[in-house]
Amino acid sequence: MQNANHRITLRSRPTGEAAPENFAADTAPVRAPEPGEVVVESRLISIDPAMRVWISENPGYVPRVEIGEVMRAGGIGQVVESRADGLSAGDWVQGPLGWQTHPTVAAAQLQKLDLSLGSPEDWIGPLGMTGVTAYFGMREVARIRPGETVLVSGAAGAVGQMAGQIAALEACHVVGIAGGSGKTRLLFEEHGFHGAIDYKAEKDLSAAIRRTCPDGIDVFYDNVGGPILEAALDNLRIGARIVICGRISQTAAPQLHGVRNLGNFIGKRARMEGFVVFDYASRYAEARTWIAAHLKSGRLRQRLHIINGLDRAPDGLGMLFRGQNTGKLVVSLGGR
Amino acid sequence: MQNANHRITLRSRPTGEAAPENFAADTAPVRAPEPGEVVVESRLISIDPAMRVWISENPGYVPRVEIGEVMRAGGIGQVVESRADGLSAGDWVQGPLGWQTHPTVAAAQLQKLDLSLGSPEDWIGPLGMTGVTAYFGMREVARIRPGETVLVSGAAGAVGQMAGQIAALEACHVVGIAGGSGKTRLLFEEHGFHGAIDYKAEKDLSAAIRRTCPDGIDVFYDNVGGPILEAALDNLRIGARIVICGRISQTAAPQLHGVRNLGNFIGKRARMEGFVVFDYASRYAEARTWIAAHLKSGRLRQRLHIINGLDRAPDGLGMLFRGQNTGKLVVSLGGR
Repeated sequence: MQNANHRITLRSRPTGEAAPENFAADTAPVRAPEPGEVVVESRLISIDPAMRVWISENPGYVPRVEIGEVMRAGGIGQVVESRADGLSAGDWVQGPLGWQTHPTVAAAQLQKLDLSLGSPEDWIGPLGMTGVTAYFGMREVARIRPGETVLVSGAAGAVGQMAGQIAALEACHVVGIAGGSGKTRLLFEEHGFHGAIDYKAEKDLSAAIRRTCPDGIDVFYDNVGGPILEAALDNLRIGARIVICGRISQTAAPQLHGVRNLGNFIGKRARMEGFVVFDYASRYAEARTWIAAHLKSGRLRQRLHIINGLDRAPDGLGMLFRGQNTGKLVVSLGGR
Repeated sequence: MQNANHRITLRSRPTGEAAPENFAADTAPVRAPEPGEVVVESRLISIDPAMRVWISENPGYVPRVEIGEVMRAGGIGQVVESRADGLSAGDWVQGPLGWQTHPTVAAAQLQKLDLSLGSPEDWIGPLGMTGVTAYFGMREVARIRPGETVLVSGAAGAVGQMAGQIAALEACHVVGIAGGSGKTRLLFEEHGFHGAIDYKAEKDLSAAIRRTCPDGIDVFYDNVGGPILEAALDNLRIGARIVICGRISQTAAPQLHGVRNLGNFIGKRARMEGFVVFDYASRYAEARTWIAAHLKSGRLRQRLHIINGLDRAPDGLGMLFRGQNTGKLVVSLGGR
């Protein structure tokens, strides 16, 4: 058994974007499991926008990561030593593994993966928090109906690609906003979007939305916030719903963007709603059954953006905020 | 019968706040009614924030008032000549009478007042659009529940005073925001509010809301928009609902205020919704039955702010935007 746990800890709190200097690498002995705990060998570690929130002074609805602690992260791995009932060496699990190669974790915090639903790569994305977030955001918060026009921001990102595909599978007309022609092409070719806007190539985003959604938007699924949200609010149809899933443009912004056109909500009878996927925890199985069926049929596809090696995790977090990932960003620790 | 119709027409479109110079007074002969029409003698004319929207270049969801047209306004009066079935001289009616003393109106546009529910003064406010707006906004859009903390902006205004009282009657803890100590005192003494904030006396409105709603807000009923909306969004409880009923601070503002803290929607699972009362037209009778019962019991009270004479109507519109009215603002044309 491996005896060294390679770890990345939080060294300092960033003020703007997180940088590699905010983190430190070290190696500690693998902690022997207590009863009810297991040692896991990490395989895939998720890199998510929320991580930037967790390392801020006041994250709001989740506890912050303290200086010196291993960076918090969701991940997938295999049990290498178990002192917990129901988990054995070799089992695939997901949970809060953190940025480390060999975490020792309470079994109660882990979920054993049902590989009949999908591969470990499926579980880090569509069957994991990413897919489940998009599923409940689109179906329960936005309450999409067939034939509606659905606009998705951050559409080539982890949640965005899933959200757009779910709407397309429900017979909506789906337009995605992403940065760069490579990403917008992907939306058409791999994810079944009907329209796409490269926001980096548009001077007037509101006009670009009007051009691609000429009858207006029934649903805006927003992962980005800021000026893109404001442009979408210029193009609402009566009865529009806006889902605030994320706001990556604002998370590390030195100055928050003020949204000036909330007055549109009155005449458009619009509804805007934020949500947290954990509130749907009792219904994850329902979402995963639906998602697994569509993954197997090939109608739902995940694009993974894999970077290799734990050392690259801090830079990976920066890539998210610079829009340098296409699809779900994960750190692979190899080993399969 | 009176033969002169005194009228106030739109002379020019204001850029900022509307001023008396934007209107012109004249006198025209009373137009003889066609079949299906009646001549009305106006008694009470409503002055509403929406009127400023109707005279702007692009009002959005209602047609604008054209230059030279009689200013649009809701009002109450008595039929003086009828060529319509179901309406006779002496009947009290409400409808789009406009800023004029003797409009000739299609009976289909008028509603005969049921004076068993309340007086003409009740019908211009609580039983009219004001009360019905507050009723559906609070009960159907906000979906208030007993024990919740409800914050109301523009609380001494026409809709605000009704909205707050409706929430208090439904056993909510109600805090109002108004400008000036005379208005906040009125909220306590006449309208049963449990807390009040004089926004003109507070340097930090967000802190004032935190002080008066220490556990946060379940419902924010907003008639004002802008910085007051932003301060309220700093103080949401989980599951908060924000009703966008009006935005008088922004309607005539030279520059729109940008709301920067929409990120709070995620962790607070907040919902913000705009509405238009006309969507509830088929249910007005339900609202009026409820309101009339509470008016009769004395638990629901209207404060009317009456100005006398048609000539003062243009200045009345300015008073609204300068916060110079306390309660529902109406022009009385006397005659009773």
